[in-house]
Order: sequence, then structure tokens, then C-alpha cells
Amino acid sequence: MAFTRHILKKLEQIVGRAHLLHQKEDLVCYGYDTTPDAYYPEAVVFPKNAGQVAAVLNLARSLGISVTPRGAGSGMTGGALAVTGGIVMAMTRFNRILAIDRDNFIAVAEPGVVTGEFQKAVEAQGLFYPPDPSSAAFSTLGGNAAECAGGPKAVKYGVTRDYILGLEVVLATGEIITTGVQTAKGVVGYDLTRLMVGSEGTLGVITKLTLRLLPLPAHVETMTAVYDSMETAAETVSEIIRQGIVPRSIEYMDNASICCAEEYMKAGLPVDAGAILIIAVDGTVHEVAEAVARISGVCKKAGARDVRTAESKADAEILWKARKSVSPALFKYGPDKINEDIVVPRSRIPDMVRKIRALSKETGLTMVSFGHAGDGNIHVNIMLDKRHPDQVKKANQAVSDLFDHTLALGGTLSGEHGVGITKAAYMSKEISPAALGLMKRIKKAFDPDGILNPGKMRV
Amino acid sequence: MAFTRHILKKLEQIVGRAHLLHQKEDLVCYGYDTTPDAYYPEAVVFPKNAGQVAAVLNLARSLGISVTPRGAGSGMTGGALAVTGGIVMAMTRFNRILAIDRDNFIAVAEPGVVTGEFQKAVEAQGLFYPPDPSSAAFSTLGGNAAECAGGPKAVKYGVTRDYILGLEVVLATGEIITTGVQTAKGVVGYDLTRLMVGSEGTLGVITKLTLRLLPLPAHVETMTAVYDSMETAAETVSEIIRQGIVPRSIEYMDNASICCAEEYMKAGLPVDAGAILIIAVDGTVHEVAEAVARISGVCKKAGARDVRTAESKADAEILWKARKSVSPALFKYGPDKINEDIVVPRSRIPDMVRKIRALSKETGLTMVSFGHAGDGNIHVNIMLDKRHPDQVKKANQAVSDLFDHTLALGGTLSGEHGVGITKAAYMSKEISPAALGLMKRIKKAFDPDGILNPGKMRV
Repeated sequence: MAFTRHILKKLEQIVGRAHLLHQKEDLVCYGYDTTPDAYYPEAVVFPKNAGQVAAVLNLARSLGISVTPRGAGSGMTGGALAVTGGIVMAMTRFNRILAIDRDNFIAVAEPGVVTGEFQKAVEAQGLFYPPDPSSAAFSTLGGNAAECAGGPKAVKYGVTRDYILGLEVVLATGEIITTGVQTAKGVVGYDLTRLMVGSEGTLGVITKLTLRLLPLPAHVETMTAVYDSMETAAETVSEIIRQGIVPRSIEYMDNASICCAEEYMKAGLPVDAGAILIIAVDGTVHEVAEAVARISGVCKKAGARDVRTAESKADAEILWKARKSVSPALFKYGPDKINEDIVVPRSRIPDMVRKIRALSKETGLTMVSFGHAGDGNIHVNIMLDKRHPDQVKKANQAVSDLFDHTLALGGTLSGEHGVGITKAAYMSKEISPAALGLMKRIKKAFDPDGILNPGKMRV
Repeated sequence: MAFTRHILKKLEQIVGRAHLLHQKEDLVCYGYDTTPDAYYPEAVVFPKNAGQVAAVLNLARSLGISVTPRGAGSGMTGGALAVTGGIVMAMTRFNRILAIDRDNFIAVAEPGVVTGEFQKAVEAQGLFYPPDPSSAAFSTLGGNAAECAGGPKAVKYGVTRDYILGLEVVLATGEIITTGVQTAKGVVGYDLTRLMVGSEGTLGVITKLTLRLLPLPAHVETMTAVYDSMETAAETVSEIIRQGIVPRSIEYMDNASICCAEEYMKAGLPVDAGAILIIAVDGTVHEVAEAVARISGVCKKAGARDVRTAESKADAEILWKARKSVSPALFKYGPDKINEDIVVPRSRIPDMVRKIRALSKETGLTMVSFGHAGDGNIHVNIMLDKRHPDQVKKANQAVSDLFDHTLALGGTLSGEHGVGITKAAYMSKEISPAALGLMKRIKKAFDPDGILNPGKMRV
């Protein structure tokens, strides 16, 4: 139902006429993320500062209108979708890097800054921001924080959560609070910062982030190891970790992923391989050389048919581009995909790989897997054509079986994509009624009227 | 007021007669931590499993009795003290390491396990648990989690928060929940794990921890750099960080700390020095040698009169023992001390050092400072004799001034000791009414009747 002129007028007074959209053709652009369904809001606002965010929230609260914060709309689980309509709050105008403090290894930035641009800005000063989702070229710091984005460097460096020291947040009550610290440590009061991280826009609107930085590693090398079978590749991952080597990335691609990426990118990937590992190590020149030699030994001993190190930075970049292209390139296997993001203990990857193969055989559906093997974080893609109800039914059953097996192995349903709407129905497989009840009470403590991003995460 | 026979009988039925204390002479032993005041509970229970914890909480809730969880009682801010009486729940019988998983670099342990013993157990398997509070020889994993303990290795490795993947928690409602994951990553639902960490026993009772481990570094070297003035030492710290070197520890001791530790330990510390830095680096042999050379150069350039590397592991251990002895050894300067734990951005340490000197001069009270310079985390000790009301008044004013200056520099009131009772009165200097209101609502979401550890953190 369209907003009345009165509501639109009020919103216009807060953000300005140029920063409010309410025509259908504009709203359509803000109804999508990377999940298949679309939900159109009644209006999109583009606030410029925390005061405007607070004013919009106060108005929405007084009228009982829901508000869905939105970064770049590149999320994988529907976090930025206004499933009950209402207002989409696009944070794209919060696009300033406010400070890069080389003496204290911190930065202050607004949530609409594109993560890849932030990475480049700090790297220009010899600093390093490790969180690196495949979407980094277009996703934002705020969206990454709301979903607790990961990426390939998490093996050594952790995820977004580990790089956020403090936040400015506008609560659903219109109150503007500061959480956390601007220092290396801090334990005063409850950890509101990490509670906000990964809360998918349901607890508050992030309007500023204080981020922890590291020194930029002096040297990086990227290796590939080629295997005839996925199981052997998976066993190598366990063996590298068991040896106490900590590469910054250990990614894997199965045969279907390799073929997809190769068709898309022509990166010279071995399309006849059962799987490849892409392994990156960083540190001093000597340290990197030592790690490359050790990893190479482990890979060969485990049965890799070929192990090589990228000869140049450009070669390494092509490899990473190929890896990052897998997800969008997959549609060659079917018009629709269900994209999952399970995590198992690293040593259980071979078990999981066998399960995925069995499920694929059982359902007759193509299943492509790739992802962050070093973390046990497997992106499983079930390819299907939704026009065939039997495929949809089989795919849904496969997802349910996949999740059951994941949990039986000690895993979790999502490593970095979040719950949103796509995993909401499965959340109770992992989270007990008591824990979910507690989460609902926390949601209520933050947002008593339930106006912020309703319909997500079953809270 | 002593508990009735009826209440004691009920408690006895839950934990067994041998695991309940209620005689005054026994209660006295559980009325202390390292803060100066004592608060005696009416009973101390020693539950053995989560079911018993839940039963005690259910009983307490039905009777409106408060329950204070207690680890080793070595906290610095009164977190384990039953300030309103009631039941102290001593977690010492939860003393089992349940699993050390070398393949996945995780461990599962009960909260009463002594941190130092846990460190040794994982090191025996080539693994590494970095959190390392000075109390590690006697404090527990559960107490460390409740306070988010730090220690000297935080510069490179972070604090307790960064090593807890998941928890089993008994809520004040008697519900037993599991939080977090057993894997490297996980983002399903709100981050209850990090909300529990640092919540000082006010939100639930931790009954099991899943901990993240790292490979044990192959090599460690410990260096000392001796300075005529504290400011020069502090400037060196900034310069090391600015150079992009990340030692695992950068500790400092001022002259008063050096003299204290030397008298206590006879470790051969330079008692005529203005300050010393104790710097530890770890990694491969080559990496360590490179870092030692670079750090040595920075220290000398900055004005260190002497820089040396400990010749043996035994020598390094003596140095660390001396460093860790400072806090207890300080009483040579006065019968009482106020022990603060501020953090400032690393580059502001010289400014803070000057402020502490000025406050000491102004009040005439001895102020000793030492701590984790690499994190900007300064342990300031104000020595006094509480029998003199003017000293008490001056010391309290100095604390207030110290905190104001800390916050003005962009710092925080506590890096690792927490708020408890000793900092509760100052909490509103750092936390706004809106944020504190939110924390109170979170407390209510977890513990609707306020039975868990009341009187702490102003929640």
C-alpha cells in the first residue's frame, strides 16, 4: 500500500526531496538483493547523518511503519529486503572515510563506504583491513558488519567481527549510542558492539564504525594444488592445519566450479581436475618462502598431481578473480540456484564432500561446491529449474538433509551469509527454543515496537 | 541474615552435603577477591554440572535470593563478591578439560579449569591458548571469560573474547542454552557468546566453553630495553607500532615498579632506570631474529641506554615473573592501593604518563604505573593509607581526574579488569544514559528477577 502524501511529506522534510524515492520504477531497484525474490518498499530514504536516521526511525515508530536498513544490497540471505514493505533506509550517502590513524592502527568510517575502496585507502598507507567478502568490490562496511562478512582471509585473520572496535548506532527508539572503544582493548559494560555485528539490521542502524587495522604484510604468494579427487583435496586441508601452518587462505573449487570459472574467465584452470586448492600465504619474504615449501610438500604427499606458485601478482589476481567469479558464473548449470553456506569442523570436510555427492546422486540435481576450506566453510550450490515443482521439492529436501548432516558433524548453518529470510525456516534446527526466546527478548530490548527489519532471523 | 534450615536443606538436596558451606568461618573464605572490601554470602554451593546450576538458580529465583558465580576469586573489581549476600556459586568442581582437538584447533573445557593448567595441557600437544592474565597460575577459564581477561600477549593475539567460539550457559530462568559454534566461523542468530564474555556473571552462569587454539609458535625471544625516562620508553612503543612490527608483548614498568619487583624477586632489574620495556616476539627462528634486530634498532634510536635479549628461556621466565609480581609487591609503598586499568590509544601513552606524574605531584601520593604498553593499557596504582581520610579524598579525586583525562584522550576506563563494584560509580563517565538504559534492558531480558550477581556494572 502506497504511503500517503502526508507520510511522504514528513520523510521529505527529514532527508530532503532529492533523497526520497517513492515511484514504483524507483522502488523496484531497491526490492532486490542476490536472493531470488523481490519485495518492494513504499519508500526509499537516503539519510546523510545520524540525526536524519533518528528522525526517520522516530517517525516510523510513531506510525508503526517498518524500516529496513540497506547497504549495497549484495547480501545472500535477504537481509536488506523489506519483506513487510515500509521504508528502505539506503545508507549509500554515509560514504566517508573519516580517519585513518597510522599511529594507532585504527580507522573511522561511515557504513556506506565500499569495502574494497576502504581496503585500498588503508593499503595506500601501509595498513591492512583483512575482511574480504567476494562482494568487496561493491558491498559496504556497514552491510559487512550487519552480516559479519568473512571471505578467504579468515583462516588466518578472522572475520568482520574481529575488526570492529566500536560503533555509532541509532536505536529504533531514535536514541543515538556509541558502543565499544577507540582503543586496542576495552571491557566497560556489555559488548554491544559484537551484539550489533551479525544482527542483520534488526537491532539498530549503524552510522559510524571504528575499525581495527593491521600492518600490511610485506609479501604474499598464491599457490594452486590440483587434485584428481575432491576427497584428497579436502584431506590436504586437514593436513596443512594439522601441521600447524596457518596460510591466510585455503580455498577450494570442485570440478563443476572449475569448469564454470574457466568458461567465464579463461584463467587457465585445469578443467579435468577433480578439485583445486588455492592457497595464499603472507609475511616476510623468508617466512613466505618457508611456508610455500612446507605446503607444497604436504600437497604433493597428499596426492596433488600438480602444485605451483603464481609467477606474478597479475597471475595471482587472475586466480582470485576466477575464484570470486564462481558464484555468479554458476547459472550455466541451471536457471535457479539455492546457495548455502554451511561450516563444519575442518577435519570433517571430506565427510561433507561425500554427503554432497550422495545428495546430488539421490536428487539428480547438480550440486556445485567451493569455498573457504581452511575454515570448513563450504558454499554449496544446488542448481535447479524452479519451473519444475519436483526439482523444487527435491532441492528443499536436500537442503534440509544437508543442514541435518552439517549439525550432526558439529557444524553450523551459516559461516558468513547470515540467516535473513532464506535460512529462517531452518534456524530452529540449530538454535534451541530457549536460546531463540532469549534472542527475541534481546530484540525487544532494542526495538520494543519491532519496526527494524521485521521478518528476519525469526526474531 | 542466615538462611533458614529449610533453604539450606533444599540446597543440600541439590549439590549434596559435602558441597554446601554455611558456617561463618567457611563463608569468610568466599567473601574476598583482590579488592579491599569483603562481603559474606549466606551460603556457598559447589555444583558439579549444569543441571545442579539450573536447580540452584530455580530455587534462588523462587525465593528471591541472589546468586554470585565465582571462579578463583582473583578478580580486580569485585565481580565475584556477593555484595547483597545470598548464594556464592563456586565453579571449582567444573574442572575438566573435555577435549583438545588437534585436527580442528579447538578445545572444550569446563569453567573451573585453571587457565595456566589449560595452557600447559594444550602446549603439550603443540597448541597455543594466548590469553594470559597475570593471574593465570590460579584464575580460571570461566572467570577469565566473565571478565574478558587480557594479559601481555594481547598486542598480537587479542584477548579472551577472541578465543571463545561457543558456550554452554545456564540462564537465571534455569534454562540451559548453547551459544556460538564449534567451528572456525558462524553467524546464526545474535552473538550471545560475545555478549556473555565480559558480562561479569550478571547474565548467566557459564558451564562449558569451546575455545579456539592456535599452533604453538616455534620460537619466542624476550628483550628488555632500559630508559632513563618513562616518556622516552613510551615514545618507543609508538615507534615500534608505527614501523608495523607486531611483537606478541610490549610491557612497561616505571621506576617504582622496577624497584618493587627487584626487591621482591632479585631478577637483576636496573633499579636506577626511569623505565624498562619488556618486549617479546614469536614466530619462526628467522622471523624472530629479524624482529629482534628491528626492535633493537628502534629502541636504541629512541634513546634506550641498554637493549638486551634474554640469554635463555630461564632468564626470560625470571623477567616475566618479575613483571607479574609487580601488582602484589606494590604494598611496600603503602598499606592500601587503588588499582586502575585504563586504556588510551597507544600513541597517547606519553601524554598519559605525564598526567599520572602531575597527579602524583598534586596529591603527594605515590603512583606506580606499569602494564601492557603495546595495547595502551596502563595499570595505574595509587598507593595510600586509608586510615588518613585526606589521603582517601585525594586518591578518589585523582581517580576521577585520571578517568576524565583517559576519556579525553579517546580511551576507556578498563582494558581487562572490568567494572564490577570498584568502577561502577564511574561507568556513566564513559557510557551514555541511552547505552546504559539498553544494557539494563538486556540484563532484564536475561535475568528478569535480577538474581544474578546484583550490584555490578550499574545494570
